[in-house]
Amino acid sequence: MTDFKQAIIVREDIGMSRGKMVAQACHASLGVYRKTPETQRQRWEEQGAKKIVLEAGDTDLIEIHEQAKSNGVPSYLVQDAGMTELEPGTKTAVGIGPAEEDKIDNITGELRLVE
Amino acid sequence: MTDFKQAIIVREDIGMSRGKMVAQACHASLGVYRKTPETQRQRWEEQGAKKIVLEAGDTDLIEIHEQAKSNGVPSYLVQDAGMTELEPGTKTAVGIGPAEEDKIDNITGELRLVE
Repeated sequence: MTDFKQAIIVREDIGMSRGKMVAQACHASLGVYRKTPETQRQRWEEQGAKKIVLEAGDTDLIEIHEQAKSNGVPSYLVQDAGMTELEPGTKTAVGIGPAEEDKIDNITGELRLVE
Repeated sequence: MTDFKQAIIVREDIGMSRGKMVAQACHASLGVYRKTPETQRQRWEEQGAKKIVLEAGDTDLIEIHEQAKSNGVPSYLVQDAGMTELEPGTKTAVGIGPAEEDKIDNITGELRLVE
């Protein structure tokens, strides 16, 4: 059986506090979940709702978002409202999936895990 | 109109990596979202889906979870499967709400924001 996972890709280059980064990642995770068909969500949850957290820059986030969309993988790009730490419209995170693990890996490619 | 928010409370005392902490917070955020009535979810989303990220210890997480439940606020306690960094069953995070801001504040009380 194919494993499903969700990838959450966050910026680490814009000096977000830990709390800010967590909140943006949660926006991404939930935002893309809401766009994912119920059958995919169910399979993912039955398998333990695996999530991986990766880091990328501004341009990468847009590319990942576009590539996911063109591959038919649900994707959600988070732009900050700029109320607290960042300029309005700053891209902070993108969530993709849940989808089949190989489809996610094809899109996230060489991105590094957040440690 | 009452403001709605979601609180995500995470452990900072167990040496989780940043990526691990983000993943646990996303489990909490999504887990409690799924338990929240649709009307509350909609009001929260219309207001921008505000999320705050707080820190607490092991005992606090259980207390928060119990207090939320007894106050009728949706709550989801995350216990790690122990596959990577932690002992199986370690409580890592709790998500509460979305719910009215004052109800959330009553439960989270004096907890500090994650910075």
